Formats: sequence, structure tokens, C-alpha cells
Amino acid sequence: MTLIVPFKQVDVFTEKPFKGNPVAVINFLSIDESEVTQNELQAIANWTNLSETTFLFKPSDNKYDYKLRIFSPRNEMPFAGHPTIGSCKAFLEFTKNTTATSIVQECGAGAIPLTIKEGLISFKAPIADYEGISSDVIAGYEQAIGLKFVAAPALLHTGPEWIVALVDDAETCLNANPNFTMLADQTNQNKHVGIILAGPKKNASIRNSYEMRAFAPVINVNEDPVCGSGSVALARYLQELYNFEESTSITISQGGRLQRDGHIVASIIQEGDGNTSYHVAGHAITVIDGNIAL
Amino acid sequence: MTLIVPFKQVDVFTEKPFKGNPVAVINFLSIDESEVTQNELQAIANWTNLSETTFLFKPSDNKYDYKLRIFSPRNEMPFAGHPTIGSCKAFLEFTKNTTATSIVQECGAGAIPLTIKEGLISFKAPIADYEGISSDVIAGYEQAIGLKFVAAPALLHTGPEWIVALVDDAETCLNANPNFTMLADQTNQNKHVGIILAGPKKNASIRNSYEMRAFAPVINVNEDPVCGSGSVALARYLQELYNFEESTSITISQGGRLQRDGHIVASIIQEGDGNTSYHVAGHAITVIDGNIAL
Repeated sequence: MTLIVPFKQVDVFTEKPFKGNPVAVINFLSIDESEVTQNELQAIANWTNLSETTFLFKPSDNKYDYKLRIFSPRNEMPFAGHPTIGSCKAFLEFTKNTTATSIVQECGAGAIPLTIKEGLISFKAPIADYEGISSDVIAGYEQAIGLKFVAAPALLHTGPEWIVALVDDAETCLNANPNFTMLADQTNQNKHVGIILAGPKKNASIRNSYEMRAFAPVINVNEDPVCGSGSVALARYLQELYNFEESTSITISQGGRLQRDGHIVASIIQEGDGNTSYHVAGHAITVIDGNIAL
Repeated sequence: MTLIVPFKQVDVFTEKPFKGNPVAVINFLSIDESEVTQNELQAIANWTNLSETTFLFKPSDNKYDYKLRIFSPRNEMPFAGHPTIGSCKAFLEFTKNTTATSIVQECGAGAIPLTIKEGLISFKAPIADYEGISSDVIAGYEQAIGLKFVAAPALLHTGPEWIVALVDDAETCLNANPNFTMLADQTNQNKHVGIILAGPKKNASIRNSYEMRAFAPVINVNEDPVCGSGSVALARYLQELYNFEESTSITISQGGRLQRDGHIVASIIQEGDGNTSYHVAGHAITVIDGNIAL
């Protein structure tokens, strides 16, 4: 029997079609999770050829709004950034919910709180841990990227294990031409997913506006168009570097070299209890809307 | 203004969803081609992330049924095999035509005749030219693939410039693990798109049943799941090798290493006038059906 369910392909971190990062979202809200197998979900994600395909299920508990399962073409992931924003957008449209201001997503990384404000969807990062790296590893990355970094890069645990490195300015970042073979070797040796390269924009009054690029050749993504977890990693790195005492928002542009034009707001929130949390916000628009036959 | 038009994502060379090679098909039959720019079409194809995205337009002359424009994520192509079969399937569904047995597609490579018989869609290849290659080049490909070839490989001009090489049997073909860096260098140096590797199935009564794989790392496709132009190339190569005097059909399986299960029939037709033509046939099913907002 062919099962036909609602489908959307949502463009994330943009208000203009084809300028952001797409995610395929399949609506399984009206079927039981036990009706589909891991292999079936993986086969769909393998076929869409997008960096992520997600599946909306009924949540396991009514403290969540929905359960999300996130797949790359090769494996299931506990969490991912742009798919979370795109899937929340699709959930609101599928359920014709035009008034929600907060949503809780159940996923492999636990409960992810989301807020919706004037069309901007924001999630709280489940993890953002900082770790220094050795000068040998830094030298390897400088060689692979072909540029000198302006501060010591670090390893950021955000779900994916991103190296974050800063270069002089936005233009230097946009002009970088990494050696992908060398970069794949370097990330593979160190069990990192890839590198987030960022450069401050010239007219930014303070250190709060960046051009960013995300390179992950080891998982077959030479360059990711617009990257949610990479934005968490950059914000956490900047907090370590500059020790912002107040809550701060970082605006990030990404995707120029791939004919995209992504816009991300990464917020560092000083919680008052001494803790700091990291939030990523962006717009999302549904580009393809219909059904999928399984 | 947002333009919303019908959209289908069709799975080609399979009757089971997610087992073939997908193509995104956008229905512009009711708008004028001048209403959309080259850059807009390219941006859509860049965003779907599929090997090909196609656009159906009204034909320039009523001797054609439709005009097809075919884009990879990077450029427009005069012709491509699986997108032609998938787009014909979508055209028939868009126009609710359930009775057609022949269709003529207008595209960059000219008029492509298609036939439809019991759900099997077949196109006549616009080009299938054979050219020998030097022993140095052969040695380079043997090193990159890591196997000895069982006959001299050749260069096949089928739109894409494919090298075709045979190995001992289907199992050897399925187990091949090319060195993609070496293969990209080799194809780049020689201006080839990639290599079609094929091995005969053990129980095939004559030389008419093959396992096939298509590698094109130089255009960022390490392995293509199921390949139409590669099937034309293999059929033309086999005609040169075995000099079939009668019309012959070659059945090809492809995609096993990528969790696909594609089935292709490549036919060598002796036209009677001394000419030989090459035809590729496969099933196609619409998996995603809806609209796209531009």
C-alpha cells in the first residue's frame, strides 16, 4: 500500500526563495511512529539529497508540541540547527497555527525551546561547549584554509564538533579558497566535522556582525550554505574571546559564494543566574508544498 | 509577486519510491519562457541540490509536445537521460494524458523522440559516438579504479564524455572502491566527465545483462545512483566490442552501493538503413507532488 502524507521543503535563514538552506519536512503527525522503520526514514533522506530531511511525529508527552527526527543522507542526528527552524515553520503551517509564540520540540538532544516573534523563529542551543586546541592542529588548519587566523581557533561542541577560526575581515572570509583534500584529512585526523570561518564586517560598531562560512568536506559537504550549529559555535567562541558581560546579539551573513544570501541572528543571553545560553534565530519560508508518496 | 506553479519530484529507473534517481520538474507550461531569467532557473537548480532540475515550457513549434530546459546545480545542459524520462512522466501527469504512446521533447540537443509502452518510457539518444583512448590514459584509469579492465576502454560521446570500462563480472563491479581524488585528477586532465564501470551478470545467456556504476567526482558526483547517458555509453561500447548484427536489448542494474535499485533497458536498434540507434528505457514514479513558490 502506498502511504501519502503531507510534505514541505522549507528554505531557512532567508525571506527570499532559494537564498537560504533547504530542509525537507515530512508530516507523520497523523501516523504512529512504529508504522515506519529506521531504514525507511534513512532511504527517504538518502534520496532527497538535502543535507537534512526531517520527520514530524506526535510527541511522547504533551509537554512537547511535536517530536522531530532528523536525518542526513547517511545517518540520524540528535539535533541540527537549520532543520529545527525549518521544521518548526512547517509544523506551524501543517497545524494552521498562526498565533504560537513558543514551541517545545522533542528530539534526540532532548527538549528544544523555540520562540516565534514577527516571523523570526529562534531555538535555544542544547549544547555549546568550548575547548582549546593545540598549536600543531591550528597550523594544520591554517595550511588547509590558506590563511593566518587572527586569534587562537578552538573546538566547539555544538552537536557537530566545529573548529571556529577568525580571519581579518568579511572580505577575507568570502575570498578564502580552502584546499578541500587537505581540510578533509585534517578534520578526519582530529574527528572534527569541519571548520567555521568568520570575519568581522568593516562597519560593525562593535564585534557583533560577521561574514561566516562552514566547510565540512569530510561529510561530503565542501561548503554548507547557511549553518545553524555553526552560528551557535561562532557565538560561543566570541563569548570566550570577548567575555561579553551583557546579553549580545551577533548578526551573521552566509552563503555568498554559493549564490545564497542567508541571515542569522545568534544571541548570547546572560541568564542572570550566572549561566549563559546561546540562541539562533532566522526566517523560514515554505518553497515546495504538497504530498510525498511512500 | 510570488509565482506559484506545479512541481513534481520524480524517481526514475524504478517502480519503487526512493530506489531510483530523482529529478525535480517545474511546470512552466502556462507561463511564457521570457518571464523567467537564466539566473532564476539556475538558482532553483542550485537550491534543490539534485543532480538535475528541469523546466517544462510550451514548445517553439507544434511538432514538439513540450520544450525542456535541464539544469545541474552549476549549469544548463543540452540533454540528460534520467531527467528526460522523469520530465516526460511529469508532463504526461501534468497534462492528464494517459493514452500517449509517443512524445517529442524539444531541448538543447534538438528533438528527442520518446515512446511510452506499458509504463516504460524510452528515449532515442541524440548522440552516441565512439573514440579509442591511449594506453597511458587506460593505465591511469586502471590505477584510479584499482582494477584491471577486461577489454580496452573507450571514450563515449553521449552529451557527457564518458569513459566506459568492463570488469570481470557484476560482483567485481559492485565491489570496486575507486580512489576518487585520483579519478578526479584523471578525468580532469583528459576533459572526461567520469567513468562508467560495468560487469556482466553471471547467469546472462548472452552479453546482455550488466551491473553498472557511474563515477564523476570531477563534477562533485562521486557516484551517480542510476545513469541514463551512461547506459547509452555502455550500449554503444558493447556494439563496438561485439558488433551485434541484430537489434539487441541490454538490461542494466545500478545503484546497489548507494541503497538504490535502478533498472535500465538500453536498446541497440539496427535501423535497416545501415544506421544503428541507441535507446534507453525505464519506469518512473512521482514521489513528491505539489507546488513551488518562486
